[in-house]
Amino acid sequence: MKKVACFGEVMMRLSTPGHQMFGQARQFNACYGGAEANVAISLATFGVPASFITRVPANDLGECVWQELRRYGVVTQGVYTGGDRLGLYFLESGAGFRSSKVIYDRSHSSFAELTLGMIDWEAHLAGHEWFHWSGISPAVSQSAAAVCLEGVKMAKKLGLQISCDLNYRSKLWQYTDSPEEIMTELLARTDVVLANPDDVWHYFGIKAEGYDIDDPAYNEAVLQLLVQKFPNIKTAVTTLRRTVNASHNTWAALMLQHDESLVSQTYDLNPIIDRVGGGDSFMAGLIYGLIKHSDDLQYALEFAVAASALKHSIEGDANLVKVADVAKLLEGGSVAARVSR
Amino acid sequence: MKKVACFGEVMMRLSTPGHQMFGQARQFNACYGGAEANVAISLATFGVPASFITRVPANDLGECVWQELRRYGVVTQGVYTGGDRLGLYFLESGAGFRSSKVIYDRSHSSFAELTLGMIDWEAHLAGHEWFHWSGISPAVSQSAAAVCLEGVKMAKKLGLQISCDLNYRSKLWQYTDSPEEIMTELLARTDVVLANPDDVWHYFGIKAEGYDIDDPAYNEAVLQLLVQKFPNIKTAVTTLRRTVNASHNTWAALMLQHDESLVSQTYDLNPIIDRVGGGDSFMAGLIYGLIKHSDDLQYALEFAVAASALKHSIEGDANLVKVADVAKLLEGGSVAARVSR
Amino acid sequence: MKKVACFGEVMMRLSTPGHQMFGQARQFNACYGGAEANVAISLATFGVPASFITRVPANDLGECVWQELRRYGVVTQGVYTGGDRLGLYFLESGAGFRSSKVIYDRSHSSFAELTLGMIDWEAHLAGHEWFHWSGISPAVSQSAAAVCLEGVKMAKKLGLQISCDLNYRSKLWQYTDSPEEIMTELLARTDVVLANPDDVWHYFGIKAEGYDIDDPAYNEAVLQLLVQKFPNIKTAVTTLRRTVNASHNTWAALMLQHDESLVSQTYDLNPIIDRVGGGDSFMAGLIYGLIKHSDDLQYALEFAVAASALKHSIEGDANLVKVADVAKLLEGGSVAARVSR
Amino acid sequence: MKKVACFGEVMMRLSTPGHQMFGQARQFNACYGGAEANVAISLATFGVPASFITRVPANDLGECVWQELRRYGVVTQGVYTGGDRLGLYFLESGAGFRSSKVIYDRSHSSFAELTLGMIDWEAHLAGHEWFHWSGISPAVSQSAAAVCLEGVKMAKKLGLQISCDLNYRSKLWQYTDSPEEIMTELLARTDVVLANPDDVWHYFGIKAEGYDIDDPAYNEAVLQLLVQKFPNIKTAVTTLRRTVNASHNTWAALMLQHDESLVSQTYDLNPIIDRVGGGDSFMAGLIYGLIKHSDDLQYALEFAVAASALKHSIEGDANLVKVADVAKLLEGGSVAARVSR
Amino acid sequence: MKKVACFGEVMMRLSTPGHQMFGQARQFNACYGGAEANVAISLATFGVPASFITRVPANDLGECVWQELRRYGVVTQGVYTGGDRLGLYFLESGAGFRSSKVIYDRSHSSFAELTLGMIDWEAHLAGHEWFHWSGISPAVSQSAAAVCLEGVKMAKKLGLQISCDLNYRSKLWQYTDSPEEIMTELLARTDVVLANPDDVWHYFGIKAEGYDIDDPAYNEAVLQLLVQKFPNIKTAVTTLRRTVNASHNTWAALMLQHDESLVSQTYDLNPIIDRVGGGDSFMAGLIYGLIKHSDDLQYALEFAVAASALKHSIEGDANLVKVADVAKLLEGGSVAARVSR
Amino acid sequence: MKKVACFGEVMMRLSTPGHQMFGQARQFNACYGGAEANVAISLATFGVPASFITRVPANDLGECVWQELRRYGVVTQGVYTGGDRLGLYFLESGAGFRSSKVIYDRSHSSFAELTLGMIDWEAHLAGHEWFHWSGISPAVSQSAAAVCLEGVKMAKKLGLQISCDLNYRSKLWQYTDSPEEIMTELLARTDVVLANPDDVWHYFGIKAEGYDIDDPAYNEAVLQLLVQKFPNIKTAVTTLRRTVNASHNTWAALMLQHDESLVSQTYDLNPIIDRVGGGDSFMAGLIYGLIKHSDDLQYALEFAVAASALKHSIEGDANLVKVADVAKLLEGGSVAARVSR
Repeated sequence: MKKVACFGEVMMRLSTPGHQMFGQARQFNACYGGAEANVAISLATFGVPASFITRVPANDLGECVWQELRRYGVVTQGVYTGGDRLGLYFLESGAGFRSSKVIYDRSHSSFAELTLGMIDWEAHLAGHEWFHWSGISPAVSQSAAAVCLEGVKMAKKLGLQISCDLNYRSKLWQYTDSPEEIMTELLARTDVVLANPDDVWHYFGIKAEGYDIDDPAYNEAVLQLLVQKFPNIKTAVTTLRRTVNASHNTWAALMLQHDESLVSQTYDLNPIIDRVGGGDSFMAGLIYGLIKHSDDLQYALEFAVAASALKHSIEGDANLVKVADVAKLLEGGSVAARVSR
Repeated sequence: MKKVACFGEVMMRLSTPGHQMFGQARQFNACYGGAEANVAISLATFGVPASFITRVPANDLGECVWQELRRYGVVTQGVYTGGDRLGLYFLESGAGFRSSKVIYDRSHSSFAELTLGMIDWEAHLAGHEWFHWSGISPAVSQSAAAVCLEGVKMAKKLGLQISCDLNYRSKLWQYTDSPEEIMTELLARTDVVLANPDDVWHYFGIKAEGYDIDDPAYNEAVLQLLVQKFPNIKTAVTTLRRTVNASHNTWAALMLQHDESLVSQTYDLNPIIDRVGGGDSFMAGLIYGLIKHSDDLQYALEFAVAASALKHSIEGDANLVKVADVAKLLEGGSVAARVSR
Repeated sequence: MKKVACFGEVMMRLSTPGHQMFGQARQFNACYGGAEANVAISLATFGVPASFITRVPANDLGECVWQELRRYGVVTQGVYTGGDRLGLYFLESGAGFRSSKVIYDRSHSSFAELTLGMIDWEAHLAGHEWFHWSGISPAVSQSAAAVCLEGVKMAKKLGLQISCDLNYRSKLWQYTDSPEEIMTELLARTDVVLANPDDVWHYFGIKAEGYDIDDPAYNEAVLQLLVQKFPNIKTAVTTLRRTVNASHNTWAALMLQHDESLVSQTYDLNPIIDRVGGGDSFMAGLIYGLIKHSDDLQYALEFAVAASALKHSIEGDANLVKVADVAKLLEGGSVAARVSR
Repeated sequence: MKKVACFGEVMMRLSTPGHQMFGQARQFNACYGGAEANVAISLATFGVPASFITRVPANDLGECVWQELRRYGVVTQGVYTGGDRLGLYFLESGAGFRSSKVIYDRSHSSFAELTLGMIDWEAHLAGHEWFHWSGISPAVSQSAAAVCLEGVKMAKKLGLQISCDLNYRSKLWQYTDSPEEIMTELLARTDVVLANPDDVWHYFGIKAEGYDIDDPAYNEAVLQLLVQKFPNIKTAVTTLRRTVNASHNTWAALMLQHDESLVSQTYDLNPIIDRVGGGDSFMAGLIYGLIKHSDDLQYALEFAVAASALKHSIEGDANLVKVADVAKLLEGGSVAARVSR
Repeated sequence: MKKVACFGEVMMRLSTPGHQMFGQARQFNACYGGAEANVAISLATFGVPASFITRVPANDLGECVWQELRRYGVVTQGVYTGGDRLGLYFLESGAGFRSSKVIYDRSHSSFAELTLGMIDWEAHLAGHEWFHWSGISPAVSQSAAAVCLEGVKMAKKLGLQISCDLNYRSKLWQYTDSPEEIMTELLARTDVVLANPDDVWHYFGIKAEGYDIDDPAYNEAVLQLLVQKFPNIKTAVTTLRRTVNASHNTWAALMLQHDESLVSQTYDLNPIIDRVGGGDSFMAGLIYGLIKHSDDLQYALEFAVAASALKHSIEGDANLVKVADVAKLLEGGSVAARVSR
Repeated sequence: MKKVACFGEVMMRLSTPGHQMFGQARQFNACYGGAEANVAISLATFGVPASFITRVPANDLGECVWQELRRYGVVTQGVYTGGDRLGLYFLESGAGFRSSKVIYDRSHSSFAELTLGMIDWEAHLAGHEWFHWSGISPAVSQSAAAVCLEGVKMAKKLGLQISCDLNYRSKLWQYTDSPEEIMTELLARTDVVLANPDDVWHYFGIKAEGYDIDDPAYNEAVLQLLVQKFPNIKTAVTTLRRTVNASHNTWAALMLQHDESLVSQTYDLNPIIDRVGGGDSFMAGLIYGLIKHSDDLQYALEFAVAASALKHSIEGDANLVKVADVAKLLEGGSVAARVSR
């Protein structure tokens, strides 16, 4: 089966229990995740051999990252040890009209202080057929951006498919005012891109006419402009999330491939148990779909949307459903939500 | 007041907290319940004298069953001690599009190993006017089925009203391929039956034309076929549950009696706190309604539906609302949901 | 900046976790609040200097009240120590069709046993420009009513703006059958009144034609009758809450000033995390709005409604959002509910 | 078997989790207990038929008392409903050198407002052979003291054995400066008394020479003086607790009967999980011992000490061990503390 | 490095939180363990390559076993899927004089229903140098005993060192009255045996003169008799546990090899956080010691005792300390218990 | 009353619940503390006016520091806002032979990035009579050391008493190999020093003959050498902690003043609930004692030791007992640990 390698930072996530605000919390729930690790864990849970490349400190918290990846069957040969600290993020989980809040505390992390040559990319990408990175890695530090590019180049050289989730985060990208140059180098070598219009705007200043982020046509137009700029992109995808409130969204996706545009069915997500990692679970579903159903892109897209619809019902960063769970939702619709007994 | 005896297995339920998946749980919430015990506890809470007949092991977990029944005022003279283990079931509580999951672990339980003659049925049914059983007891083992029939026969002999919730469970019925014979003997002696179309199909191969489980007319047609097969049934009832998702259902019921068909009002259940025991709480409300409001069947039906609508807001197997709470909902509608202070 | 003084009782609130019923609870969540303290805490969190006047017992529970007020920056020079016990209330948090329940246990509290002369009103109101009281204080005991009037008179004498939330509670007012006389004396000295039609009916026997509590026109008519009776009232306001179920309400408000009637936008509150303190958070938002946006009453009203819409997403009695959070909701609508990262 | 009736108040106990101080607690653990109810529950768990006489309010908290007593098999026909509130007490559980703290909040409770004639003593004591009361009931209010005496007189008239735990509590006895008169009337009709030297001093001003509460001889001397004053007392007992710190005590007892003095073995209690209810569990063990082993007073005494040694390892007010558990400790000593598997 | 294979059942352990009794528990803490898996996890945590051979059901609970083993780096190629249920055990954690209680619920488990030929022993033992089994496997069922012998024979054939923890459990061994025959066949092929005198007595009817389980000399005498019966045993070891109470034990060990007898230092374990798995952690430490320090048996023994002394401070079945933690205790004694910062 | 100002970093502390290891924790308990803030909170709780000088980031976590200090009545005018992050530390709470572990994550914190001139020392020290700093502040960064010296100089100029807890932490002091120079400048202006022999050795290379940290004489000798080096020191103190295991220490202190040496009584701390902050609580007790009982140094010392003995029974960084609690222990000894009711 195709083997997928993912590269990125794994952080400790400290989230307030229930819907407590930061100032109310006397405990924090701890889990370990990050955009790309969430993809790897979901893929492994789908039965796709997945390996992970990252760097963690040589302390008990760094070891928790090893344990968590191993637990889900992700191969950890590419996890390096060193540096000063594990990146953290604090999450206040919103509800109703009160949005969730994230406080990043990931500067100076072991991952952010990766430098060129630290990772034996050839060893870790050999035998793989797919490499996944996201826009978060080049955002955390200049050296991490360089290491990410190092990996993308080696993946290209070894002939892997390369996918990227643009994942623009305004609170990162502290070291430069112009991420465009960095992202251009990376994206010019990438085959499959998950890109929301706001990401495309922030990175490349690209927008289509008649800005309306909730309009599928607008989303499609932006993807077309992106593909024009990066003709190497074979598959461009965007998720369509409409926010009714923090507990209630609608969810679908649109895929552009060879001028063909596909739109998925729409899911009414209510209640949302945990919205963080929703896009990552979509990305994992998309990679799975493109690998296993390359002959039926509509199914691949529907799989990704259904998988990520299920993720919104799961606490924690990572999607823990299996292929059978996704298939059940695709076949049964809401009847799938009956008690299984 | 009419005294009601119920017969069935009481299990320890181990459910994941919040909406955790099985693989995420480090704790399980424990409570004690079962289809028929849920009926007995709800009746006792309504103020109807209720007694329970079952068998539990002679250990601390079996003792918890005694304590839990006593706590709600259920008479426990009919609880026998013996056998190897208390039946268990594990519950993963779903949300949104992710359904709840049940893992039964009830084979070889003290109840499943009941044998003929163990229960002094005459002693435990004397002085009662109603006997309730469900399709779960004959499903757990051949000997439990025989004991259930033993009880039904004695109840008939003593002149009790007999009610049954068909409760078909595909994960049970391991010892036989044809539950029809067993259920026919039992149902031929039963006066009040709660039967959903799928139950009727699985047990007796009966279905009406134009299968549509969400259509009241289809439900009514199935009940009519059932009553034709079992003319001894005086009252046949079905609940009408439409699943929007695991957290949101609609809920109503339909009753057939002497060719008269009654339909209740419909409740929009959102959010659902705990869906397990919803049918049991309806059954308890129905028995209460038929006993106390035998002259107003529409009210009896509405009572049962309102009582079970309230159950969906309560964590645990059993419905813990009082008659006054149900009456308040019947009178006030959604205004009843204002804070009471 | 204008300084606001509030007077009222602070209780320990003991609420069942999750949506447990009283009979299920093995733990209670404890927090400290009360209608007027909730106003003071919200104002302090908005950056308005707020001080509080109350009385608590000389034990560790009374001290928790000091700590909680101080924590949010409320000035506690006016907190007196003495008496026998801290008032309590128990809260069962409902869901769906099951309403929340309150059991008050506040008789004989240190606050209820306040007597004339105990409070040095002049000292505590000096330097302030606003005084807030609510209908709960005169309801708890005859002597508390007298002390409340003592405070209102001093506030009047010192030239403060005076506001009141009528807050009728049927379970209080045990010492008299006719609260009208007491409330008339108090209201005749009050400038800003938050009054729901049911409050007005219970206190003063006033109702308008065509009773319909969900109809803004009816609400406006009642306010007009109230202002006719109390021409000293400059601003009369009512909240418009429609209860779909205990987890889902709609929420808006209507303001009457100088024959001008303003209506706010309507919020769909779903899910409601904690409905208690919703009115208090509105009152705090209104005082803030009237102080800071006295030249734009529509904005003042919208601010109060948005602030209290956010409160419904927060567990505990008090609203803990900041002015910026409210402004973000006012500007962004549901988009404000996206994750902030 | 001998049936035992107990009379007293049942309170809700709200204790801080772990070893939190009051000011740290955000949750309180709730259970239901009281000196005499603890005796009744322990006796019922030993298999002795026990009934309870008390009064609780007609609300959901009062109902929890019913449920808790029933759960352990205590007969609740003597539980009356009425009055304003359930008595409460708050418990901060100490550790090491920090003592546990109790804040009583039981004034004006349903029990404290019992009045003469409310209880049908004859009905509730008929068929019983033993009546137990404690010094707490006459301490809570003058009318409760009168009702307690009413009960003691009826017990005497019906020929029951009467036992008392003196249980002096300095924070109660608010209504009188001289409990002596009241206690004298009660004790003059009592057969078995559990009395610590400090109790005897506070009630009757009796002390022996050379005050040393840790000295068995001093304890015996005080009991002799007590029996001289009340020659009706057949059995006088005292527990011998030496406090190393709040987590570590030693524990034994001394019994005086017909001039014979018996001393039990001493247990080293370390760690103490919950010290509250230690004396009550001794009292229950003593009643059990005197009923079942009246021919072997030393065994009766040892049973009571061993039972209460076990109680110190159990969270909550009541002792939940069985006769077999106590026997195992009596036979096995520390070997009894090995894992049972 | 030497690779160690372990064979045994992995169960879900459901333990009461804090020191709650079974009847008090509303939640159970869940973890996964078993005598032999505890050895494998501890070895893997020491850095010794460990693989595990067992059988779990094909459901979400079985999958938790896979995840837990993988998390600690145990190789899971030998985990088979099939059968009906995961074995369980319930644990009530004692304190003071109240012992911990275990309720086994492991009959009919996937492991108990293993049959000859199911396991490809050659594949799973190839490349290993050590095989570990315990007396629990042959105790759970006749077929499991046969499979265990199958494994031991293959290990012998492949030339592995074989170790065994006798682990007599009176609540198991239901299928036969004479475990001696079975254990004799197994032990006759075993090189390293952990055997307490009571185990030896129950299995083989062997005891030495002057029974005193706390006396090292008595323990040594029993080991000598055991080695006389099984001259193939190269190393016989016993732990010396003296039970002060359930929270306080002393702990040491004695090793017999080639007529040489070694005794370790004694540790005062107080408080004990979790006593379950104490012997397993000793076994893992012993295997580690014998592999890494075969030239210094005293150090090997001290390592095993120190490792297991640390285990008593860790909640859960398995010992999670590293070699460095053990070395620190061996070097520093109680000073090792200072805060590390 | 004398006003005390303290300067130092406040961190979020994230500790594992119960005695979980880092790898087991799924939640962390959060509180806020630091060596000097613990002193300020304890002083405020003793009724001594205390103010605090520090720097926190402008986010919700920084705000929690404000709230926590205010809650205990510490004056927060000296809390500055700015910088990137709140310092953190992770705490694994040990038990028995397993030591507690601390992982610092405080580099690059708002406090560590303080620079000269940021703090208006004159404003914050005016009106105070005592200034307290500790060896942790100069250890976190070079600029923090400079700011600390800036403060000490201003305190000297304004005539305040200056105290210091040497608090050597090997995991800090990353920026220099020779803390001696920095500490010499600071200590040369300090009047009261809490210094353990290991601190003195690490900072100044000073040790006395016959190293034995548990020997009071050795401790006294080291203090004498320290005072010889810094003749400005009026009072030198050391605590005497002997570690039996992580749950059991003994605790006393020794004071040197004008060649007079005083030794306190010794406390047997068992069990220890939370050992972190033990020294800080002693320091607060010492400042209190020196201020309030300057005429009775032995009492001052005993007060500090008793206060900190009580701290070991309290979870969290700060000592929350009152003067009356300490006095009760000083007067009553172990009897003080009886339940207060």
